Amino acid sequence: MTEPYADLDAYREATADERLADYLDFLRIPSISALSEHAPDVRRAAEFVAQRLRTIGVENVDVSETGGHPVVYGDWLHAEGAPTVIVYGHYDVQPVDPLDLWVKPPFDPRVEDGRVYARGAADDKGQVHLHLAAAEAWLKKRGALPINLRFCFEGEEESGSVHLDRWLEANRARLQADVAVVSDSGFFEGNLPAITIGLRGLMYAQIDVTGPHLDLHSGGFGGAVRNPATTLAEILASLHRPDGAVAVPGFYDDVRPLTDRERDQIARLPFDEQAYKQMIGVDALYGESGYSTLERRGARPTLDVNGLWGGFQGEGAKTIIPAHAHAKISCRLVVDQDPARVFELVRDHVLAVAPTGVRVQVTLHSSGPPSLTPIDHPATQAAARCLELIFGQPALYIREGGSVPVTASFERILGLPVVLLGFTPPDDQAHAPNESMRLDNYENGIRTVVRYWGELASLPR
Amino acid sequence: MTEPYADLDAYREATADERLADYLDFLRIPSISALSEHAPDVRRAAEFVAQRLRTIGVENVDVSETGGHPVVYGDWLHAEGAPTVIVYGHYDVQPVDPLDLWVKPPFDPRVEDGRVYARGAADDKGQVHLHLAAAEAWLKKRGALPINLRFCFEGEEESGSVHLDRWLEANRARLQADVAVVSDSGFFEGNLPAITIGLRGLMYAQIDVTGPHLDLHSGGFGGAVRNPATTLAEILASLHRPDGAVAVPGFYDDVRPLTDRERDQIARLPFDEQAYKQMIGVDALYGESGYSTLERRGARPTLDVNGLWGGFQGEGAKTIIPAHAHAKISCRLVVDQDPARVFELVRDHVLAVAPTGVRVQVTLHSSGPPSLTPIDHPATQAAARCLELIFGQPALYIREGGSVPVTASFERILGLPVVLLGFTPPDDQAHAPNESMRLDNYENGIRTVVRYWGELASLPR
Repeated sequence: MTEPYADLDAYREATADERLADYLDFLRIPSISALSEHAPDVRRAAEFVAQRLRTIGVENVDVSETGGHPVVYGDWLHAEGAPTVIVYGHYDVQPVDPLDLWVKPPFDPRVEDGRVYARGAADDKGQVHLHLAAAEAWLKKRGALPINLRFCFEGEEESGSVHLDRWLEANRARLQADVAVVSDSGFFEGNLPAITIGLRGLMYAQIDVTGPHLDLHSGGFGGAVRNPATTLAEILASLHRPDGAVAVPGFYDDVRPLTDRERDQIARLPFDEQAYKQMIGVDALYGESGYSTLERRGARPTLDVNGLWGGFQGEGAKTIIPAHAHAKISCRLVVDQDPARVFELVRDHVLAVAPTGVRVQVTLHSSGPPSLTPIDHPATQAAARCLELIFGQPALYIREGGSVPVTASFERILGLPVVLLGFTPPDDQAHAPNESMRLDNYENGIRTVVRYWGELASLPR
Repeated sequence: MTEPYADLDAYREATADERLADYLDFLRIPSISALSEHAPDVRRAAEFVAQRLRTIGVENVDVSETGGHPVVYGDWLHAEGAPTVIVYGHYDVQPVDPLDLWVKPPFDPRVEDGRVYARGAADDKGQVHLHLAAAEAWLKKRGALPINLRFCFEGEEESGSVHLDRWLEANRARLQADVAVVSDSGFFEGNLPAITIGLRGLMYAQIDVTGPHLDLHSGGFGGAVRNPATTLAEILASLHRPDGAVAVPGFYDDVRPLTDRERDQIARLPFDEQAYKQMIGVDALYGESGYSTLERRGARPTLDVNGLWGGFQGEGAKTIIPAHAHAKISCRLVVDQDPARVFELVRDHVLAVAPTGVRVQVTLHSSGPPSLTPIDHPATQAAARCLELIFGQPALYIREGGSVPVTASFERILGLPVVLLGFTPPDDQAHAPNESMRLDNYENGIRTVVRYWGELASLPR
């Protein structure tokens, strides 16, 4: 299987330097979709991707409006009789705080010890870029792709893919395909290749507790009024049971129980709990009782406080009763939980425990359904063969704890099977300071994708 | 009693404009003692007070080092045979956040509707300034004071009076006196004059919960690890019982129960709960069950969360498990609670409920003992007579929920009776945005103090 692609590998090797320079330029754009002051940067990143698509010979390139940040679309449809594949990635990135923990500024990429360090290096600009490189090799070296490709690069994945579904619905006509390849996932452990078959859904909300119309002197008013910060803490504490399970009534009602076979598959994955704890920096793991760590983080729903704030947070002391306090919370959901229903359950629970003397509001921020994709689809099997060839190990089939809402959207709106093909080991620190991408995985990712498209040319239709 | 001071009143009236200008200059100095970047401003405010003392004829003026912010000392000791009075106030102010709620910048004072608006206008620069004005009237008009005065103006009251006790001990020799007058309290309701006889003590601490060494992706890690923000909420929620009482074991052990007579006195204070709720902006009051609102805020101990923070607090969504979360908490204490003991109880409770998977630390920030001063002391009675004369209503004897740690220090270290004489109604918004001082109270405060010193000249020694 190697020989047929020797010319493409040679092209890849010959263009490594300019490709790296282009990748770093891409990383320099602070395309943080969640922060409105970065909207022009997000737009700039979209234009960057569009320009790159045009340069390598992709056609019908379009920075397509969504009502939010644009989707960059482009296609190449001249492989008559061959299947059509949608390639999805996202060019937006997570916020960067806490900024002081970055060794170098997050948008000033550096190459060190075989890694590229920058926000978005792995999630997801690196994976977008390696797909562009695979297309470039085919088009520049052979003047054609072995399959028909439609590229869809999103700009709102890190802020909830708020406008994507509507865009997919509106663009059904130009999104006809046989399979969607989503490249926004990673490896399981170390450098073991993996294909993700399960993704958790997401429900992200904010809780606002408002009390007095001003911060009050905690001496003069302490004992007279309900403290919004204390109340927020009590509300948040009410969300879990002492055994680690989510305490929101009805939360588990729609959860599809794990079968014995599924539990057995998960139990056989290589997992070194000691090394995992050390990587994270904790002395004990924790979660819903009755489930293993791998089950809890991949196949069971969770509720986490993502942030909380209120009152005085500076140096020293300020003796106030805060006028208000806030928390961001989110649930990771599994099949068959419905994010909208889970939001209602959480909201109803919070409002039910909210006491008098404060006003409590719960607002849905974003959501995405969970998904579970088929292992036995020929496109999944082809991906597994290519991964094994390039990375020298059989690919694992895993359930990822994260959410890629688009996966469920491709399934539901476009009726497509989805293959989740990503190339980043779990120590990439996506969403955290000092995010990085291994350069060998980036290059091997290109080799894998080059071959994958060749393999898909013979996909039964 | 009015006639004997007509010349001093006339002087006060004639100098009103220049006094107001000087008061506003004082307010322009952002002397926030809790924030180290304002240390030069705190020093500037100390020099301002010292200069003012010198100008009006006070002697031995000294910006006295404490190891922290200085104490401004000055005396006038030529009233042979007359008693000696220490006048205490503080020239430092609270932090100003949330800054966006200020109608005008906090250190750009404005006069509007008979009030001076600025941080420190009431607490405590206005009260310091009116004492200076009273001394000026005596010294400029009559060339002498009727009593011996020692001024002590502190620069750390708003950050816990950390160095004051040591300074008082070191300066015992130049602090010999018959009584201390502390002007850092206020009226009870509306414009009813009051003398504070009880002050709550303070214990201020910080709780730090640390988990993973980095923020983690809540998708990839949710369900695997203990969430520090959730844990912080659970710890904070464990500090109160459902009936509003503090749940820390032993917290109430040393609390001196209210006598029937004390409860009766409190019950007879004028208090319009409806108007109070409206002023605060809440639909219900709340606190330890079994006690009235006035008892809870003045004569019972409390525990409040003053601030909390951790994880993502920005616009939009960030799907992380925060690496750490923090809270500032403080207790208001009543006789005979010991702040050091209460800190130990709170710390032990927090550490006892702290789970595995995170590290929890509790750090004492500052503390001050509670105090209860005698109603029947002749200096207290003289203050009551002067207040009634100037404000036209008998002074109430009240317990203030706030803390003025120096009160207990004067009692304990210098063995002095303390009179708490302040002039600010409760709507002054001390510690909150848009703090203000009523100008009529400021002027009537000067008239009261002018007479009070006259009255104290005949204090039995």
